[in-house]
Order: sequence, then C-alpha cells, then structure tokens
Amino acid sequence: MEEQLQKLHAFFNPQSVAVIGATKKVDKAGHVIFKNFSTNKEHGVFKGELYPVNPSEDLILGHKCYASLSKVPNEIELIVVIVPAKFVPAIMEEAVIKKVKAAIIISSGFKEVGNTDLEEQVVATAKKGGIRVLGPNCLGVYYSKTGIDTLFLPETKVLTTGEEVVATPRPMPGNIAMITQSGAFGVAALDYLTGRQMGVSKFVSFGNKCDVNESDILHYLLYDKETKVTLAYLEDITDGREFLKIAKKVTIKKPVVVIKSGRSAAGARAAASHTGAIAGSDKIYDAAFEQSGVLRARDMEEFFDMGKALAMQPPTTGKNIGILTDAGGPGVMTVDECEALGLTVDRFSDATLQKFQELKDQNIILKIAATSNPVDLTGSVIDDMFVMSADLMFQDPQVCGIILLGLHHMPGLREVYIDGIVKVAENYCKPIVMCDIGETEMALYTRSRFDRLGVPAYPSPEDAARAMKALATYGAYLKRNGCFDEYIASIKKKSTKDSK
Amino acid sequence: MEEQLQKLHAFFNPQSVAVIGATKKVDKAGHVIFKNFSTNKEHGVFKGELYPVNPSEDLILGHKCYASLSKVPNEIELIVVIVPAKFVPAIMEEAVIKKVKAAIIISSGFKEVGNTDLEEQVVATAKKGGIRVLGPNCLGVYYSKTGIDTLFLPETKVLTTGEEVVATPRPMPGNIAMITQSGAFGVAALDYLTGRQMGVSKFVSFGNKCDVNESDILHYLLYDKETKVTLAYLEDITDGREFLKIAKKVTIKKPVVVIKSGRSAAGARAAASHTGAIAGSDKIYDAAFEQSGVLRARDMEEFFDMGKALAMQPPTTGKNIGILTDAGGPGVMTVDECEALGLTVDRFSDATLQKFQELKDQNIILKIAATSNPVDLTGSVIDDMFVMSADLMFQDPQVCGIILLGLHHMPGLREVYIDGIVKVAENYCKPIVMCDIGETEMALYTRSRFDRLGVPAYPSPEDAARAMKALATYGAYLKRNGCFDEYIASIKKKSTKDSK
Repeated sequence: MEEQLQKLHAFFNPQSVAVIGATKKVDKAGHVIFKNFSTNKEHGVFKGELYPVNPSEDLILGHKCYASLSKVPNEIELIVVIVPAKFVPAIMEEAVIKKVKAAIIISSGFKEVGNTDLEEQVVATAKKGGIRVLGPNCLGVYYSKTGIDTLFLPETKVLTTGEEVVATPRPMPGNIAMITQSGAFGVAALDYLTGRQMGVSKFVSFGNKCDVNESDILHYLLYDKETKVTLAYLEDITDGREFLKIAKKVTIKKPVVVIKSGRSAAGARAAASHTGAIAGSDKIYDAAFEQSGVLRARDMEEFFDMGKALAMQPPTTGKNIGILTDAGGPGVMTVDECEALGLTVDRFSDATLQKFQELKDQNIILKIAATSNPVDLTGSVIDDMFVMSADLMFQDPQVCGIILLGLHHMPGLREVYIDGIVKVAENYCKPIVMCDIGETEMALYTRSRFDRLGVPAYPSPEDAARAMKALATYGAYLKRNGCFDEYIASIKKKSTKDSK
Repeated sequence: MEEQLQKLHAFFNPQSVAVIGATKKVDKAGHVIFKNFSTNKEHGVFKGELYPVNPSEDLILGHKCYASLSKVPNEIELIVVIVPAKFVPAIMEEAVIKKVKAAIIISSGFKEVGNTDLEEQVVATAKKGGIRVLGPNCLGVYYSKTGIDTLFLPETKVLTTGEEVVATPRPMPGNIAMITQSGAFGVAALDYLTGRQMGVSKFVSFGNKCDVNESDILHYLLYDKETKVTLAYLEDITDGREFLKIAKKVTIKKPVVVIKSGRSAAGARAAASHTGAIAGSDKIYDAAFEQSGVLRARDMEEFFDMGKALAMQPPTTGKNIGILTDAGGPGVMTVDECEALGLTVDRFSDATLQKFQELKDQNIILKIAATSNPVDLTGSVIDDMFVMSADLMFQDPQVCGIILLGLHHMPGLREVYIDGIVKVAENYCKPIVMCDIGETEMALYTRSRFDRLGVPAYPSPEDAARAMKALATYGAYLKRNGCFDEYIASIKKKSTKDSK
C-alpha cells in the first residue's frame, strides 16, 4: 500500500520528466505540453529534470532532444506520452528498462475506439515493470505547486478580430481536488473553477483508466494535505468493491462529491461510446454512494456548489436551518427549497423570539421585521441589523446553520456588512452560506467578497439551499459514523495553520 | 373590457403624471422616483406632463411643486404615491375629484402589516372614481420606451472605497415582460436580466395587489405588441377562476412562465407574513397552471432559462431531441437530463446515419466521431463539422430540436462557427439551444454571441436540456389546443418585422 502511494506521488512530484512526442510544431499537443514544462522550469516552479524525446528533433525550446527514451542518460521518474497509439507499447517496454515509476498516456486510439488489445498490451508491460499508468485518452495532471501541467489545450485563443482571450485557464491553488473521467468535462471544470475563484489542489484526468482509477486517486488524496474536498466526474467505477472500501475510508475524513453520468439508458449508451464505460444500473450507484458517504450531485451546478460549501464551511449538526433575509420573496423561495430537500425552517424558540423582540424594542431592528424564521429585515435593512440578527440566530441551539439572503439592492445596505457577518460567523462552529441575486457589478462584487472571506456565495436562493443541504447531509453521515468531532477538529487545525 | 384595458394603458403611457411625495431629499424614495421622471423628460423619453406634489416644497429639480393634487391646474392621468400609508386615503379622494385614471401606490404599511382597513378604504375610494390602483407596497412600473420608472432603488451604489458601481440596473428593451408580487425579487430580476443581456418589454411590481392583479396584467400584456413572453413571480393568485380564464386566453398566443413560491408549509407561512398572501395547496396551483398552459419553473434559474428559450426560439413539434457535441462527458450529461425530463434522445433513422457515414467517407467529419445521437465530434472538432452536422440533424424529421454543446476549449474550434450554426438554424422551424461551460473570457464571449444572434446559450448541460424541455412542453400544449401553426405564424411575422 505504502509503495503504491509512493508511486502515485511520482505523478505530482517527479524529480525528472521525459516528454515523449515533444515537438517544435506549435499546434501539436506535444508542443503545448513540453512548453508548459519548460516554461514552468524557467520560472523555477518545476524543479525537476526535463527531457524532450523525439527522433526527428535535436533541440526543442532550448532543451537537448533525445531520439528515444533509452538514449536519455539519466534516471526518469515520469514519462508523458503523446505519440500515436500504435507506438505506445514499444515506449512502455523502454520505460520498463529505464525503471520509470509513472506514465501519463495522453494519446487516444485505445479501448475507446475498440483497440482493446493495444491497451491490454500497454497494461501488461507496465505491470511487468511496476509502472503506474494514467490514461490513456486523458489530459493527465495539473498541479500548480510543482509545475506539472500536461494539459494540451491552449490557455488562450485568438479571435478572428485579432484579440487574444482566455480559453482554458488554470485555476489558482486551493483546497479542492478535481478528478475526472472526461477530459472535456475536466477542462470545462477548470474554466468554471477559475472564473468562480475556486482554488484547486490537484487536477487529474484519468480517461480510459487502464491502470490508475478513481479509487487509487481518492486514496492518494486522502493523504494529500492540500486537499480538503474531492470533486469527481465519473462515467463508471472500475472495481465497485474496492471503491466502496476506499471511499468509506476517505469520506469520514474528507468529503467527496461526485457527478455520475450515464444515469439514463440513452446516457449509458452514450457513455459506452465515449470512454467505453459500462455503466450498470444507476440505482446501484446511488446505493453505493450513499453507503460510502459519497455525496452525489444532481447536476453540474450542484456539483460545484456542493464542493464550494464543503471546502469553505463546517457541516451542520442537524437539519434545522435559520434563514435571514432582506428580501421577502427570495426568503420564501429559500424556505420552499429547504423543505423540499428535507431540511426544516422551524419557528424559533421563545428565548430567541424574545431576544429579537428586545432588538425591536431597542430600535436596532425595525418593528415591521418578521423574526420567527425566516427573519425578514425588509428592504429598510441597514448593516447592523444583519450582523446583530445573525449573531442571535447562531446563538439559538436549534439553528444548525444560516442561509443569508443579502440582496444588495436595498438602499441602506452597504458592503461593509459583509465583514461584519464574517466576523460574527467566526465565533460559531456552524455553517453559513449566502445568496445575492443579480449579474451586474454590485452582485458580482458582493458574492466574490463573501467567497474570498470563506462564506460561500450563490446566485440563487435555491442554490444556497442546496449548498446547505450538502453540509447537512455530510454532517449527518459523519455523526452516524461517530467522527463528526474529529472532522471538525481536523478542519479547525487546518484553518489555524492557514492563517499563520 | 376594452375600457379596462384602456385604463391599464395609463400605467404605461400616461399623458401626465403627478408624483405625490416628491422631495428634494436625496435619499428618499420620493426623490429617486421624481428624478427618474424628470431626467427621462429632459432626455425626451418621457413625453408627458410632470408635476411634483409636496406641501413643503416650492420647486423640485426645476419643476414647480404643488401643495396638493387638487392644486395642479391641469388634468392628470397617473399619480405615483410615496407618502406614509395613513395619508393615502385622502389623496385618493382628491384623485377621484381630479378624474385620475391610474394610481401607483409605492407606500407600504397596509395589509402586509395588518392595516387591512386602510387598504380597503383606498380600494373603495378608487372604485368610486374608477381609478385603477397598482400596489400598495410595490415598486410599480418600469417601461423604458415611455420613460416610466417608479423604481426607488438607486441605480448605482458608492462603495466605501469611493468607487461607484451598478447596483439596480435597468435592462435593455426586449420582448420579455416581467411581473412580480415581490418587489425585492423584481429588482433582483432586473439585475439578472440586465447582466444576462435579456431585454425587457414591461416591468410591473404589483405588491399587495389591492386592485390590479396578475390576471389584469396578463390580460393587458396579451395585447402588448412588444411582449412575446411573460415571466411572473407569484406568491398567491387573487381570483383563481379569473386567472384560469385569462391565462387560457393568453397562453395559446404567448407563453407565460411562473415561479410560484410558498410551495411548502413553512414557505406558505413566510409568504403570508410577506405580502399577506394565503397560498393554499400547492397541488391546486400545479393543476391550475398545467390546465391553463402556464409553465411553472422549479427554481429561479429555470425561471429565467425558460423565459430566454421561449423568447428566442420556436417550440418543438415533439419530444425527440438531437444532441450535437464536441465533448463526450457533457454530451452524456445532456442525454441524462433530457431523459429525466421526459424528452427522448433516440438513435437516428438509417437515412440520417447514412448521411453521417457519407460525411465520414468524405473526411468532412472524423471517422472516430460517434454519430448515432448524440453526435460526438470529439475534441478534434473544427468549425465546419459542427455546421454540417447541425444541418443534417435539422433535416431528420424525427429530430424536433437540437441541443448543441460547443465547448470552446477544443483547439480547432474558432468562434466563427457560431455564425455558421445560426445561419443553418435559420433555414428550419425547429429550435436550437446551446451550452458552453466555463466562467472566463472565451466562455462568456461564446454564450453572449449566441444569445445576441438568437440562439439561447446556457452555462451547464442540464440548463440547456431544461430550456429545451420548456420548448417541448409549450409546443405540446399548443398542439393539444390546435394553435401550434398559428403561433408559429405569429412569431415568424414578428421576426420579419423586427429585421426590417
């Protein structure tokens, strides 16, 4: 086990990398990938040795090029392979001789188009040499800290107008690991995560997963200090029993969110022609995920929304939620969605209602405010009303988490309330998520500021409710397994470290 | 009936407006609203007469101020009332004498806080004089063409850093009417619609709806040439029978999408304390909406997504959808969601499969492309492949609409394909919707360009599928009622007019 994890380590922290199929030709994947490494090496991010391998080149971007892997004079830990499928088995034979630890095979043309024999040949050779293989038919790895970037999709594109725009951005470092069976979904996810300012610890696209599969990566990420939450896009699971065993081990320490496609019969058929996945009954997947504490997202948006909530906030200890709003209608929409999801929005205890009455008596909040849950401070809200109300709600032992609807449109609300809310929330070990509706400047600013301060912000009331539901589901799972407190302690330790 | 519609006309096209409660005090609603009118008059947008009414002022923003409504020397069609609730009945008495046609009562403090008597007094007086009343406790009307803007929420806010940012923007003119019981949801909707570049024909916030209600406005919008689709946020319906009658009349001509909150017991309780709405059983609403052809959105995002699809594309003639993608995983996700929604993604006819085979034989699309539906052109897609495939799919009589997944990340895909797709789609009377995933420059550019060219673009595969589902549901409704062809003819006529 230990040794296996060590081998996977070579995908993320290799001392030396050979890029097989590196080329000078600018629009080839072999160029983009080699250039990623050489640029990262220049900038001192990638600190290992770098070797381009291509029999038809002498020098690529200033690096001496080798005719074959065998000709490289030094040890090689990781190879990245971007040559036509038929050449790959021979390269793997060389890799065995060179005692390579890990191989990322970007090339397609294997099982996904029916060339099962070719893929099996690669696997057999790798096994012989103890080489771990990622792919084939994948995008490989992105890990910003060590400069591993095997993404061959151009970071920018030039429009016909001559303007250069960001096309496949790399996200900032963070605590979310993104692993994916679909490369296209993977780059789309990177684009989404970057735009929403969600930081990524490791990105792994594993394609046909002839060797390294979802279970291996999940297991590796359990010990990865930078990863707090794993997001996984899956079309099938290679070994159900193994997955269950490992997922159970992981989820009591770190949340795992999956989107599993091929739910429908037609979807499963489409998945089969995509990655050769044989999906099996969707109900079995549902049961397996539930049993192993894996949170299954219903759709793409929920997938990212859940990940963000779990990366930023603690889980809840129960299912009763307090709702705090300056907008009546959106408040009602939030209550509706909470109830639809099995959360409750119970009337506050008399003690809390009494405290709210005192706030009214002292003219701290308006007499017309509704305070029995949801708390509707109305459009006449000012900053302090929000902060004081949140504090009261956190104090109520029946309130397990707060959904804040801070619609910025209200004239008396200034953006300084954001810091006030964050400060109050820090005193409690209960989650808070927020929603502001709108797609222009102030809405984007408000959500982005909350996000940066660790309160996940969502663009619709229902999204916020679903995020809270994920925190409640995960909390209930941890409690059932007797490891809620341990999890809370572990994330507290982490955040203390972060702030040092 | 005719006369009633005529009266409602005064809310949108008044020859003269008096603003009761206009003031110089910059942070008062009475200032913001009066200034909206005076600015729009200066700019030649509001062409009517404008009178500020306030006993304590002589002149407001250069306009002579009158001590009371009775003192205004000329006729007044519309009054906008922004004074404390208790003064409103007396103002209405004056309005009767002045033969005012319509009143927008912005003021709150009526039924929603228990002052039912006061509200009834207003209604009784209005009825006596035949005055139609919008509100109270509402935001009123925004109609860009005539410069009617009773929104008192500041268009911009100044951050503590001294920067001024857009806070409550006004959307561009367009063919979507937005009507809302919740003012806060209304401004949030304006913010959303502006940011997503969805144009608005009329905006109406009707609050407590003591007189003019959802049915009245729906009826008015049926005859409004600028409105193609109506989006309605509702917490209750005033008169169920009347609503059914009018909705049935409207929906065979123009789609109506509602979001009806207060679904859950706790939600209904919250709604009651918000607008005094008595929500009733949610199942009854469901049945009423279905019976009258009103499309009910499940959540805020679907609400806007459906509206966009219906505003831009024709409904489908059936439920079988063709999916065209350059990204396998997202293609599978789309199939899943279509099937979950009751749409089908059937294998193409032999004739269509044969035509795709010919494209392969001619090397127009790749041999490895999957072409049986979904069509997966793979990451090696180039512009023409998308355009030629869409054309083939539109030709298939079994394909009732196309969902295009054009993930911009693929290296060979250039943005010019967008125009190619739009051109092909123009030859068919079948809907097309698209999805590109990502939140950075190229994704935003792609979606925005498709939107501008009339192909509704969505940020997730499931959103695109839900939009198509709305087109299928509406199409089926029109067919059941024998008015599909008539609807198609009416939208074709409209778009011919638009392009002139």
